Amino acid sequence: MLNLSQINSTILDGRTKGVPGTTSPFRLADIGEKGWNVLAEDLPLPLMVLKRSALDYNANLFADYLAQRGLSLAPHGKTTMCPQIFDEQLRNGAWAISAATANQVHTMHHFGVRRIILANQLVGKANVSMIAQLLAEDPDFEFYCFLDSRAQLQQLQRHLAGKKLQRPMRLLIEIGAAGGRTGVRDLDTALALEAAIRQCDADQLAFAGLSAFEGALPGLDQGSNPVSDFADFVVKVAQALPPEAFAKLDEFIMSGGGSAYFDMIADRFAMLDLAVPTRIVLRSGCYVTNDHGAYHNLQEAARRDPNRHWNASFQPALEAWSYVQSMPEPGLAFLTMGKRDIPFDAGLPLPIKCYRPGVGFLDIGKAEIFSTNDQHAYVRLGEGADWQVGDLIGSGISHPCTAFDKWRYIPVVDDDYDVIDAMLTFF
Amino acid sequence: MLNLSQINSTILDGRTKGVPGTTSPFRLADIGEKGWNVLAEDLPLPLMVLKRSALDYNANLFADYLAQRGLSLAPHGKTTMCPQIFDEQLRNGAWAISAATANQVHTMHHFGVRRIILANQLVGKANVSMIAQLLAEDPDFEFYCFLDSRAQLQQLQRHLAGKKLQRPMRLLIEIGAAGGRTGVRDLDTALALEAAIRQCDADQLAFAGLSAFEGALPGLDQGSNPVSDFADFVVKVAQALPPEAFAKLDEFIMSGGGSAYFDMIADRFAMLDLAVPTRIVLRSGCYVTNDHGAYHNLQEAARRDPNRHWNASFQPALEAWSYVQSMPEPGLAFLTMGKRDIPFDAGLPLPIKCYRPGVGFLDIGKAEIFSTNDQHAYVRLGEGADWQVGDLIGSGISHPCTAFDKWRYIPVVDDDYDVIDAMLTFF
Repeated sequence: MLNLSQINSTILDGRTKGVPGTTSPFRLADIGEKGWNVLAEDLPLPLMVLKRSALDYNANLFADYLAQRGLSLAPHGKTTMCPQIFDEQLRNGAWAISAATANQVHTMHHFGVRRIILANQLVGKANVSMIAQLLAEDPDFEFYCFLDSRAQLQQLQRHLAGKKLQRPMRLLIEIGAAGGRTGVRDLDTALALEAAIRQCDADQLAFAGLSAFEGALPGLDQGSNPVSDFADFVVKVAQALPPEAFAKLDEFIMSGGGSAYFDMIADRFAMLDLAVPTRIVLRSGCYVTNDHGAYHNLQEAARRDPNRHWNASFQPALEAWSYVQSMPEPGLAFLTMGKRDIPFDAGLPLPIKCYRPGVGFLDIGKAEIFSTNDQHAYVRLGEGADWQVGDLIGSGISHPCTAFDKWRYIPVVDDDYDVIDAMLTFF
Repeated sequence: MLNLSQINSTILDGRTKGVPGTTSPFRLADIGEKGWNVLAEDLPLPLMVLKRSALDYNANLFADYLAQRGLSLAPHGKTTMCPQIFDEQLRNGAWAISAATANQVHTMHHFGVRRIILANQLVGKANVSMIAQLLAEDPDFEFYCFLDSRAQLQQLQRHLAGKKLQRPMRLLIEIGAAGGRTGVRDLDTALALEAAIRQCDADQLAFAGLSAFEGALPGLDQGSNPVSDFADFVVKVAQALPPEAFAKLDEFIMSGGGSAYFDMIADRFAMLDLAVPTRIVLRSGCYVTNDHGAYHNLQEAARRDPNRHWNASFQPALEAWSYVQSMPEPGLAFLTMGKRDIPFDAGLPLPIKCYRPGVGFLDIGKAEIFSTNDQHAYVRLGEGADWQVGDLIGSGISHPCTAFDKWRYIPVVDDDYDVIDAMLTFF
């Protein structure tokens, strides 16, 4: 569905992290013909890889779930910024792609995404102008963004002044929570904002629904779960909107679920009954790759919670491979990967596999990464971790968003670690 | 000195973070002719900028210092991974460029760097093969890397077997400290390692000197300063080497100073008196841009320390610009930048400038960034911080290494924020 020809014909060489410098420059699409295998040391480490089987498993699992529940998906594209993954997501039924910045919207549109939710406030002359130009030139482009203040609305009006769009920007009023991130905090402000949108030039700006992000609610990280109450408040705002708010709408957008709590959002939003059809749009980004850390743990918590209906498990699709480069003291090892290669903001990577060239897989043993520098990981070794300098260590990661943004190219492997494809990112 | 024609002719468009999508694709070298100004909102924010005047100030300050002290510099290229900055560093007298990975070495060599120190252990088939191929094909290429174990030496021998190099890999035995990062912990192991190198094929592997990294010593972050004692130990190892270690050397390399403690390393290494000339090679990477955070603070500590001879100040060359996107509660604001845009591993950015379109610079007031998400910064506002949605906020950063790796292109501005040039990074 997307136009990936530019990506497929991108020339890679040893200047790209993870590409062997001994190879002649080659087209990305030809990587599968190289016969490379990660365990055969055909590629330089550190290396992030995507496991094809896990990607497919997750895509199917979530597509089935969404279909059963009648939910739409605008997966958060900022997680991967990978048009090849966007293409797979759209083929699997995604209704739109979500973005976090105007440059991300531009990238998505460039590769052919035609319905985009900027799940963020749009502000600033160059940012607004970029979007306005796409809306002026492309009759097929549908654009939504978040709005949470009159000041932001005035920004949009000012920077759109005199511009002729083929479709208006569609505004989702963002509902927030006290002490949380962005979003309107109370009902009256939300209603006033909807009324203010109605005063704008309808060819430029149109109200389209409500949005919320439950993943940064205060209290969430202390173990309480305020998601349902928050979702109830969003529903309450929708129900309080005046009839004029719906007058020009074919459907009303209710967007949330950009976190591991998507099932709770879906439950509550489904209770809404309005004069126009409601489209519930989840924005999950991490489902596509999952992880071995924070996102995995949140899903396990959901499985144990009788009040949650999500009880499946995504598979981890990302692995970071590196070498044991030094073992200078008993019980201490260093890996050839660091802050430039792996996420470190929501837990450090977890060593899960040890492969010794000429020998094969060994027990990983007890091994904990306890610190990282720019290009090093510090590992404490315990029982059964009989590592050697030169061993290949595969680690699971925590937080896919800060894994993808550290790699311009990520090879895709099968379960034998044969390189069968590769993805490019655009951060 | 380097070949930057590929960089200068790189075509940029709105898919690149920080490039306006409203512009037609253009050559990087033509960016100065666009007439763009950051404060005029010609570029989409968030945006990292490099200040030309600060880059030049720092380059001159450090070049003078090195010349006065008779020190050589192999600036750590992993900080910037920017060949345009490497070119400026070499023009300012750098003796070599340091790298952290085989892919970084390949990138540096591609753009014309001919003397490279891999300031790290080289391990793994593809990594060794990449370097070996450069040494086999390019008679002008001089390559150094760190060595800290017999196991690593055996790795090198195994993967070099049968390869004919025009020059040998030059090995710097890395000296480390107990509880620290990589590097040999004691004198006997270091001496045994030098003897082992002498048993290798001299056309492939040659001993060249000692190396150390004082920036990760245990105790440093608790306020003690073990750098001088550590440097003394490195000197002691050099003095204990047998005459055979020097037999084939024109000069002996002593490399350290890849941190803000370079002056202490220089003091101690200068005491070494050997049968062959000693070249003291510092590897500072952050001097070129400095920061408003951790690196700045370490320099201020040096200025206050009567035992340190470094008493100058580099200027901060990096600034991150973003918009105020939301002010949903009194005293709380959100900026359009997050973990994808700014370093967050050694302190969060510091708001230093507030610019309101149509009005001009305002007092920044009391404003503290206290958290970041992928694409948001959370700001607590206090006295005098009369921000509005749509204001442009300039922030200083902490830790240049994790600033550069978040941007593929960074515009260079003059003191009026006119865009006069742009740099590309290769992470």
